[in-house]
Amino acid sequence: MTITALGLDADDTLWHSESHFAVTEQLFRDLLAPWMAADVVAERLLERERANLALFGYGAKGFTLSMIETALEASGGSLPGQAVQQIVDWGKELLSHPVDLLDDVEATVETLADRYRLVLITKGDLFHQESKVAESGLADHFERIEILSEKSPSTYRAVLGRLDVDVDEFVMVGNSVRSDVLPVVEMGSRAIHIPYQVTWGHEVVDGDDDAHTWHQIDRIAELPGVLAGFDR
Amino acid sequence: MTITALGLDADDTLWHSESHFAVTEQLFRDLLAPWMAADVVAERLLERERANLALFGYGAKGFTLSMIETALEASGGSLPGQAVQQIVDWGKELLSHPVDLLDDVEATVETLADRYRLVLITKGDLFHQESKVAESGLADHFERIEILSEKSPSTYRAVLGRLDVDVDEFVMVGNSVRSDVLPVVEMGSRAIHIPYQVTWGHEVVDGDDDAHTWHQIDRIAELPGVLAGFDR
Repeated sequence: MTITALGLDADDTLWHSESHFAVTEQLFRDLLAPWMAADVVAERLLERERANLALFGYGAKGFTLSMIETALEASGGSLPGQAVQQIVDWGKELLSHPVDLLDDVEATVETLADRYRLVLITKGDLFHQESKVAESGLADHFERIEILSEKSPSTYRAVLGRLDVDVDEFVMVGNSVRSDVLPVVEMGSRAIHIPYQVTWGHEVVDGDDDAHTWHQIDRIAELPGVLAGFDR
Repeated sequence: MTITALGLDADDTLWHSESHFAVTEQLFRDLLAPWMAADVVAERLLERERANLALFGYGAKGFTLSMIETALEASGGSLPGQAVQQIVDWGKELLSHPVDLLDDVEATVETLADRYRLVLITKGDLFHQESKVAESGLADHFERIEILSEKSPSTYRAVLGRLDVDVDEFVMVGNSVRSDVLPVVEMGSRAIHIPYQVTWGHEVVDGDDDAHTWHQIDRIAELPGVLAGFDR
């Protein structure tokens, strides 16, 4: 069936995000160096983020609170006040960081918008994501902006319902196998994976490439050609 | 014109919220008593929340980070680590607090759902608001759940666009004059104000009751009668 609607993930698909978090995490490991080895800090932080996910959801504010808890634990409560403020300031920097589009995004999104109904599908902090969409200058190319609290087959199905398109008319594109590919394939639509240079630990999926039921490309500029091939 | 669609605010309109924040704020003032008078703490916290609003948006995570910053400032950085963890734990309690419906909400929403298209319109943290909507047991009565990053004439207009209703077919109901009444009246729709027992400082509006262009009722149970009166 002909593809009519295209879902595009935002963070690490249209603009850089995880690389900013990775820079912050490096600073955080340095801050805790007096108390804990860097690799243990990374492990504890990921554990803490996962434990907090059901309460905090995704995004920089929850990440900041998880860093604070990890730091308090690592230092046995002896963390100086200025270090806590430093962590809060890192959180604010993440939230105020200028939107930095990936290569070829602007031209590719423009091309795709002429051919398909585009919907931006992202998760995370509503307020922060809306700010980034506005700042990106890409909003006008999208028919809908869908900010989800979680990406699952049921939340994707709800998006398709709001678009009034069938699963075989829809393709999802994004950098996360866990969020942008697997739930979409489970729902019965096609998905295209564009890996980003960094993947957050929580999004890492153990590979089972036997069941390789999605496409993978290296750069978003390849997307119009691949999609055109789908319709032949 | 006949009213066809009704917008209902959630926090402090359908369920208790600000009273939980008020309890936390009292504990927070007690925590900072060694360093700062209670009324000054309240003032500084509100200042901090307002300064952070453009970055954090609304909700318990931003509130928690603002409490931490206020406490660090009040204590001159000498806040013990366990006090920081205490503040984070209060934030988690706010996020995990059971949904506690206001009186008569369940029956009233049921009655209204038979007569009007209902849309729940709230602001704040996407993840937390979705959790509360799900837990409330009220979701099935609403045609749409709209979680906005800010309530303004333009965001309300967008909601009406998605509902495909005119401004004179729509009535908004909520506890906040700033968020649920003024932008709705400015847009050209009617609004009904149901004051809650506590109002967050940021939502307090200096009264100019000469321009009293909205309705006020004391309890949600009065709503079906008032709305029926609109149509006569």
